[in-house]
Amino acid sequence: MNAPRPHHLADMTSEEARRAAEADTVVLIPAGAFEQHGPALPLGTDLVRAEGVVERVAARLDGRAVIGPALPVGVSPHHLAFPGTLSLSVDTFRAVLREYLAGLSAQGWRRILVVTGHGGNNAALTTVAQDLLAEEPGLQFAWTPLTPVAADAVARMPRGEVHGHSGEAETAQMLHLAPGLVRTERFAPGTTALSELDGLGRLARRPGHPSLQLRYDRLSPDGVLGDPSRASAGDGAAIVDTIVDRVTGFVEEWLKA
Amino acid sequence: MNAPRPHHLADMTSEEARRAAEADTVVLIPAGAFEQHGPALPLGTDLVRAEGVVERVAARLDGRAVIGPALPVGVSPHHLAFPGTLSLSVDTFRAVLREYLAGLSAQGWRRILVVTGHGGNNAALTTVAQDLLAEEPGLQFAWTPLTPVAADAVARMPRGEVHGHSGEAETAQMLHLAPGLVRTERFAPGTTALSELDGLGRLARRPGHPSLQLRYDRLSPDGVLGDPSRASAGDGAAIVDTIVDRVTGFVEEWLKA
Amino acid sequence: MNAPRPHHLADMTSEEARRAAEADTVVLIPAGAFEQHGPALPLGTDLVRAEGVVERVAARLDGRAVIGPALPVGVSPHHLAFPGTLSLSVDTFRAVLREYLAGLSAQGWRRILVVTGHGGNNAALTTVAQDLLAEEPGLQFAWTPLTPVAADAVARMPRGEVHGHSGEAETAQMLHLAPGLVRTERFAPGTTALSELDGLGRLARRPGHPSLQLRYDRLSPDGVLGDPSRASAGDGAAIVDTIVDRVTGFVEEWLKA
Amino acid sequence: MNAPRPHHLADMTSEEARRAAEADTVVLIPAGAFEQHGPALPLGTDLVRAEGVVERVAARLDGRAVIGPALPVGVSPHHLAFPGTLSLSVDTFRAVLREYLAGLSAQGWRRILVVTGHGGNNAALTTVAQDLLAEEPGLQFAWTPLTPVAADAVARMPRGEVHGHSGEAETAQMLHLAPGLVRTERFAPGTTALSELDGLGRLARRPGHPSLQLRYDRLSPDGVLGDPSRASAGDGAAIVDTIVDRVTGFVEEWLKA
Amino acid sequence: MNAPRPHHLADMTSEEARRAAEADTVVLIPAGAFEQHGPALPLGTDLVRAEGVVERVAARLDGRAVIGPALPVGVSPHHLAFPGTLSLSVDTFRAVLREYLAGLSAQGWRRILVVTGHGGNNAALTTVAQDLLAEEPGLQFAWTPLTPVAADAVARMPRGEVHGHSGEAETAQMLHLAPGLVRTERFAPGTTALSELDGLGRLARRPGHPSLQLRYDRLSPDGVLGDPSRASAGDGAAIVDTIVDRVTGFVEEWLKA
Amino acid sequence: MNAPRPHHLADMTSEEARRAAEADTVVLIPAGAFEQHGPALPLGTDLVRAEGVVERVAARLDGRAVIGPALPVGVSPHHLAFPGTLSLSVDTFRAVLREYLAGLSAQGWRRILVVTGHGGNNAALTTVAQDLLAEEPGLQFAWTPLTPVAADAVARMPRGEVHGHSGEAETAQMLHLAPGLVRTERFAPGTTALSELDGLGRLARRPGHPSLQLRYDRLSPDGVLGDPSRASAGDGAAIVDTIVDRVTGFVEEWLKA
Repeated sequence: MNAPRPHHLADMTSEEARRAAEADTVVLIPAGAFEQHGPALPLGTDLVRAEGVVERVAARLDGRAVIGPALPVGVSPHHLAFPGTLSLSVDTFRAVLREYLAGLSAQGWRRILVVTGHGGNNAALTTVAQDLLAEEPGLQFAWTPLTPVAADAVARMPRGEVHGHSGEAETAQMLHLAPGLVRTERFAPGTTALSELDGLGRLARRPGHPSLQLRYDRLSPDGVLGDPSRASAGDGAAIVDTIVDRVTGFVEEWLKA
Repeated sequence: MNAPRPHHLADMTSEEARRAAEADTVVLIPAGAFEQHGPALPLGTDLVRAEGVVERVAARLDGRAVIGPALPVGVSPHHLAFPGTLSLSVDTFRAVLREYLAGLSAQGWRRILVVTGHGGNNAALTTVAQDLLAEEPGLQFAWTPLTPVAADAVARMPRGEVHGHSGEAETAQMLHLAPGLVRTERFAPGTTALSELDGLGRLARRPGHPSLQLRYDRLSPDGVLGDPSRASAGDGAAIVDTIVDRVTGFVEEWLKA
Repeated sequence: MNAPRPHHLADMTSEEARRAAEADTVVLIPAGAFEQHGPALPLGTDLVRAEGVVERVAARLDGRAVIGPALPVGVSPHHLAFPGTLSLSVDTFRAVLREYLAGLSAQGWRRILVVTGHGGNNAALTTVAQDLLAEEPGLQFAWTPLTPVAADAVARMPRGEVHGHSGEAETAQMLHLAPGLVRTERFAPGTTALSELDGLGRLARRPGHPSLQLRYDRLSPDGVLGDPSRASAGDGAAIVDTIVDRVTGFVEEWLKA
Repeated sequence: MNAPRPHHLADMTSEEARRAAEADTVVLIPAGAFEQHGPALPLGTDLVRAEGVVERVAARLDGRAVIGPALPVGVSPHHLAFPGTLSLSVDTFRAVLREYLAGLSAQGWRRILVVTGHGGNNAALTTVAQDLLAEEPGLQFAWTPLTPVAADAVARMPRGEVHGHSGEAETAQMLHLAPGLVRTERFAPGTTALSELDGLGRLARRPGHPSLQLRYDRLSPDGVLGDPSRASAGDGAAIVDTIVDRVTGFVEEWLKA
Repeated sequence: MNAPRPHHLADMTSEEARRAAEADTVVLIPAGAFEQHGPALPLGTDLVRAEGVVERVAARLDGRAVIGPALPVGVSPHHLAFPGTLSLSVDTFRAVLREYLAGLSAQGWRRILVVTGHGGNNAALTTVAQDLLAEEPGLQFAWTPLTPVAADAVARMPRGEVHGHSGEAETAQMLHLAPGLVRTERFAPGTTALSELDGLGRLARRPGHPSLQLRYDRLSPDGVLGDPSRASAGDGAAIVDTIVDRVTGFVEEWLKA
Repeated sequence: MNAPRPHHLADMTSEEARRAAEADTVVLIPAGAFEQHGPALPLGTDLVRAEGVVERVAARLDGRAVIGPALPVGVSPHHLAFPGTLSLSVDTFRAVLREYLAGLSAQGWRRILVVTGHGGNNAALTTVAQDLLAEEPGLQFAWTPLTPVAADAVARMPRGEVHGHSGEAETAQMLHLAPGLVRTERFAPGTTALSELDGLGRLARRPGHPSLQLRYDRLSPDGVLGDPSRASAGDGAAIVDTIVDRVTGFVEEWLKA
């Protein structure tokens, strides 16, 4: 390593961290997952995407944000049937994040934003926000997923009837952010039509509520929803740029609020 | 009490419960909150609405569903500044529900649906679903909120720029389900325009992500978002009927899956 | 529902709850169980009885007490072999109650009385009282069972050598409080004589200490101790009235202490 | 130390313990407290009494019982205002005992009896018995207090209107079991009449239910209820002998059941 | 018992404990284990040795130290395959000790030293020290093992290539401290040479790091490492005296710091 | 990113992970800390060093080891007074690691080695090893620190009377592994002589036992023990090479055992 990565707290000295806290910077925490992403994407895909966004947002904010420690393993019980998947329990994921937040707060930060590349973390993140409302209302905690923030950009991509995990939009982001990690030679369509699902699978994929979750081995033999071969780096750039724009905009508004 | 309430497990004998479990019925669990609902609605509003829906759904399913024990107190840290609000911690709410589910599963039920009248329970419910994917994948657990299921019916009601807690749609449901509990003489508009909010409040009310939660005393002096005086029992009936239709439809599909 | 139930916090508005707390009312919390009660009584028997008493006590105290959220599921491991029985673990029952109490205390109440229809909750209630002595000594917490409070009235009823769960005294209370829930056509004697028990069963039913608990499927084939057909609504009224008198008297003395 | 104490597991070798477990012995566990016992009795009084009884019972059972590890600190929140008092939380006391029991069960014992010299442990002991009914129904767990087992012998002693902690009966037991630990020169009456208590104190000392617990500094300036100077070693011998007889009888019946 | 044991808090009255805390005494807590110690030593060996040292240190400090409640069962998962072994989980051992420490601190003590006869407790003791640095930095907590404190005295004893648990040094201490508990007629060499171990066993016994722990049934058929017959009471006296000197010296320095 | 990092599980696909598990590879987990490292080293120093070693060891083992998810935040209560320090509680650090290990075991790995750059994690790692002996004895878990493995190489460096955290040996490793992260212009001696410490500080730095831990703000004004300006990249290379040799040798022996 030839130089500290910009904005990363881990690469700062204690004194530099002190100045960053005193400058009332926002702390960005990237959260990922350690889970199957089909035949073509790596286990760490969600952290790669979260870190890609976080670094771009921090660069845009130029000194008004720092990047805190990552959450490299997320809440992934739905993928445990696939090799290589590791998952934290909800309780432990919550505990780790709460201790990160308590520590950052004790060191003087007042605004913390978790950027999660993994949707399975969303509910746990919301519950941590609820804990804080009761226990530490002075700390401002926000979180954001990635892909849903750019739903319009995603909607402009070619996609099949069923799409999602390791499919068109996620592959596109990886082709843009970390093309060297994508095994394009292994692209193969996963589940792309509702008719490939059984009754319970179709029920689980119904939009809206009631909500029923299933393990992904019931939804797709190779863990993929959609067809990654439809993805392009250009689509990925459009999605990532949209996310970065909107998250940056949110933080700028936050810093003024 | 002159007769057992139809479909309520609590009113059945052990032997009747045994037969219900053997008939592979769906268990419906109503979840509420014990929190401020402005000057006109009671603290128990969310359970009243959840029970109203659950009883109608059970009646429609006519023997294919039973009603289990309620969750009368929910996750309400955002309302703790208002008198009368009680809240379970996320950990305890999760523990209670998990023990209900483990018990019902041990007694032979395979499908359980929680119907929550309180949106603050949604994330905790999702995390319980995740726990079960890892620990008890044979149990089918679903959950649903109320108002979002009838978003189209709600959208047809007169509503202001800001609306939500104890506002038009929730009051309408109560006017239909439990008019005797609504203090119509105390109707008064709460926060109805974004301009009444401070910067952080507006950020918290932005649709979509990133997501930032605030305590409701920061959003509204009397805890109300919207104007309850716009609500009518007719609108409430439309909302409730839509919810009941859709939840019943979901369960019927589930029983066939 | 045509009107708020008298004294029930759940049916009050936030403002009404504020006034009740400021008036230094006692909060009554009914605790039940969700467990087998033999062929003739419903699973929810213990909550029905607790609520029946609590409502009568609140009526007698006329404004000096309010009724808080119920504990519909109790600690019932001894009945788990019978269909329909659900049980909270001791840890979770304790957690829920502690959070109810902490919330009520934060909202300004200083005196809380749990009325439990289920003896299996007694030890957990005592341990919560112990927790509070160490952690929140300013909160006054009391609890009471039902039937033991009227031991003299119970002793005047016809009873066999073995009596207890779902037997004479409990059935009598239900015939008085909720006759529509009693399946009188299913009355049948349970275990009524020590000679029906094996050695371990007799040891467990010895009065006094040492104390040895057994699961009820070892004590009675249908989960009943005693003969419910000996019960009358009149006996039930005598028992309930005695309990209501004594609990009301306790609270009146408490309010003066 | 010149020889292993009879029946104490701690003094046996692993091989001797193996033979004791194979002989299906009952394990006796003495539980005490580490709390104020007024001016004349030591902090460890409750363990001294429990161990005294346990050793006599084991001697009587002559090879059919062994003595396991002690619980030297109990649940004593009501005495924390007095110097020297230490208390385990209910959660930790429960955890320690559960791990003792799980370990003894794994090593082959099937019957375990806790003998507690401290009434503050009773509720926690009962909840552990409840846990086991759900989780390890094959293990037979019993527990007993001391003084209540000999209520008739105690009733024959001279006692005042208020009596109890560190008073007549407890002091008598110590004069019999460990006279060298009793500072007879410091005997002084504690609270001996209800009129010395305030209203809340009298409510707490009412026999029967509802039950309200208070810290002992509210009940007695020196932590004593009753008058220790009325105690004699002869009364103590009568109490202890009664307890030993009855506990031994219980175990003998148990071994046959 | 004819007199209170010197320096033992359990044998003091509340008033005596108050004076000891006000005199700013150090509290010594003996920690043991309840585990196999081969054919010749008792299960409670580690507590016997810890108490032996603690009593000598307290005697030497003459009024500047008191002895608190013991930890009779330690963290012994590596011995669970041998009869009679009981073990607390790390979590529970930590909880008990933390509550002892919190209680002693609340009663006014500022310096606490745990003396553990069992090396399996060392890591848990260190983690408790870490907890306190974060949570109660004003409390000074130290701990010490026994045998490693006298490594030089141990090195002067005759020992084989493999030595350790229940071997030369431990047996020697017992011959000095509690000869009546040593079954000298059962002395037999355990594992004494690396060649008796399999590959994993040798890896586990390598000095230094990386560190790999194995269950002792993999290291020795009778649970002994070394040859107890080489031990003498004289060697034990040398070891114990060295430990007592050094621990006493540490406390004297501490009291001046 | 242009290519997957060699041996990193996060960069593998699910299928590649499956093959790695089936090949019975050892999993290497780097553990760090997020804590002050004086004026010249970054907060993430310990993870940088652990990852540097882990990658070299994996390269040497060439296909017989994979690198699992990192533990970027460790147990650092002793540094909390310095800006930027974050710490996990012992309980949470233990929980995260246990869930990593359980997940890797479920995915088929049998040997896992944690390499910790932070000594504050050592005790927690040992307790996790103890947990596994009781709960999952089939999983082989080892851990190693860094600097103590090369004690001989460290002893050959120029060092002062007091040395340690962020001092000579740690700085040397960073100069070798990540020179771009070292602010050499900020090198300044920290505490280098015992005479700079107060009495308690000297007691805490005594070698051997008893062991007393202090917060580092009591030991050093800038958090450094030793003089970093004495460090050279060459010394760092000697230390790192020694560690890599010995850890690689350990794993090779392990794979044969």
